[in-house]
Amino acid sequence: MSKKKAVVSLGHNALGYTTEAQWDAVKVTAKALADLVEADYQLTITHSNGPQVSMIHKAMTELRRVYIDYTPAPMCVCSAMSQGYVGYDIQNTLRSELLSRGISNPVSTILTQVTVDPYDEAFYEPTKVIGRYMSKEDAEIEIKKGNYVKEDPGKGFRRVIAAPKPIDIVEIEAIRTLADADQEVIACGGGGIPVIEQQHVLKGASAVIEKDAIASKLASELSCDELIILTDVDYVYKNFGSENQTPISSMNISEARNLISQGQFEEGTMLPKIEAAIGYLETKKDGKVLITSMAKVKDAIKGKAGTVITA
Amino acid sequence: MSKKKAVVSLGHNALGYTTEAQWDAVKVTAKALADLVEADYQLTITHSNGPQVSMIHKAMTELRRVYIDYTPAPMCVCSAMSQGYVGYDIQNTLRSELLSRGISNPVSTILTQVTVDPYDEAFYEPTKVIGRYMSKEDAEIEIKKGNYVKEDPGKGFRRVIAAPKPIDIVEIEAIRTLADADQEVIACGGGGIPVIEQQHVLKGASAVIEKDAIASKLASELSCDELIILTDVDYVYKNFGSENQTPISSMNISEARNLISQGQFEEGTMLPKIEAAIGYLETKKDGKVLITSMAKVKDAIKGKAGTVITA
Repeated sequence: MSKKKAVVSLGHNALGYTTEAQWDAVKVTAKALADLVEADYQLTITHSNGPQVSMIHKAMTELRRVYIDYTPAPMCVCSAMSQGYVGYDIQNTLRSELLSRGISNPVSTILTQVTVDPYDEAFYEPTKVIGRYMSKEDAEIEIKKGNYVKEDPGKGFRRVIAAPKPIDIVEIEAIRTLADADQEVIACGGGGIPVIEQQHVLKGASAVIEKDAIASKLASELSCDELIILTDVDYVYKNFGSENQTPISSMNISEARNLISQGQFEEGTMLPKIEAAIGYLETKKDGKVLITSMAKVKDAIKGKAGTVITA
Repeated sequence: MSKKKAVVSLGHNALGYTTEAQWDAVKVTAKALADLVEADYQLTITHSNGPQVSMIHKAMTELRRVYIDYTPAPMCVCSAMSQGYVGYDIQNTLRSELLSRGISNPVSTILTQVTVDPYDEAFYEPTKVIGRYMSKEDAEIEIKKGNYVKEDPGKGFRRVIAAPKPIDIVEIEAIRTLADADQEVIACGGGGIPVIEQQHVLKGASAVIEKDAIASKLASELSCDELIILTDVDYVYKNFGSENQTPISSMNISEARNLISQGQFEEGTMLPKIEAAIGYLETKKDGKVLITSMAKVKDAIKGKAGTVITA
């Protein structure tokens, strides 16, 4: 029997704010991923990197403050470092968890660049907050450098960057080769290193790519059987957060669109996941999207929990 | 005609001390690598990471000084970040250089862990200097944490760590899969993230692995046709640095051993390269080692420059 190919998208709760917290968190994450491998899935794993890239960005800023002979590290370099950091933690712990279950599948991380459109409207009004609070003076220096800042009243200023849509996964052939060889692959970490194509050159962009958007793209490109989005809730809910919230066990694209138009899904949390699901299902009519928590995923693949979305 | 498989080992001069300097340096490096791809080599590329991991280690130390809620980043995490950073720069520029020559081969980086022996004698007397100068007080704190420090008279104290021999390349299957698919792969950056195997678990080790040692191991494991070591000299020399230094155009293992016993090769620079060559050739009798500079590599593969070592 051939394996089911799935892209798994990991949210913030799969990782950690500090290196130590992350080490503990990924051990739990590895168990959920190993449950899927044990159930005969081939996994291509992607993950968010907000706190990690933010930590690295802060570190590189402090480095430059103390050692003025270092040049500033652009966001694309911080993003590449975060893929190294998170990829290592996941591949290390998933390998151990699999071996402890008698499974010796190779697990590795492919550093991934993702092209974005320089004319994407996200560049005109950046919304993603990154880095530390700054004084008004430092904020003005950032603005002079061409960066965007946002005031958080009473707390200070923070940099904001654009979150454009992903266009192409540059290293897709390498990812596909490993996936086709039935290996577990970690790729497009943090949405991928955002780059802008200028003839043959890929220039690092001052941006971040939403991990759900890239997970959708990855599942489409690899023509995966399933897209599994692991988050901090067991189900997608109708009337989420209200007294009469009800879990959705399954829906199709048109039902999902209907709920979107009712404003049922929160921007920045559930909405991008539903949009990711629709995007993938439009390219893979017989595909299946599963949205659930790490704790419930083992039950969810048996149809006992989680929200299933189909075309 | 099938491609020749080669491992290419890049030294410090292929990269840069700062992010900006590295960006310039890798463009030159990419040209040398593209010359090899154009000459029908499949490349598995490894590189040193001394200045890069040192920069990241300093940055993470400064981060921790300013934001005390962050836990210290262990060396294995800094090493993983450095693989992300350097791998991104190389894969980005090599892809561009290849495309500008009409070659669309996939290029990617595999994050790599390498096991070391906890009883390796290198752990008993660490010799690799890393990080910034410290005061005597800070040095004493490091010693209390179980780390080694070394005094550089008049300048201060610096941390020293062990450089044990590589045992196993953990992600070798992923690397082999991409190499066998005729893709260019960057792997084992900075010698690999050093880990110690404890049952199913790989624990990050406070160590670095010599890049020439890992290049040798990688070429053996992949059963490569050639091991190409790019450095800052065009040839291996006899009586290097003296008035009568003479380039060696070719030698075999026993001639190389003879020259080693004469003390012809400097520790820490040429000696590890010759030892890497011997190690690989012992496992691959019909293999070929080429030691030359990036500027001469195009001539060297035609037999017009560089030092060739065979069994």
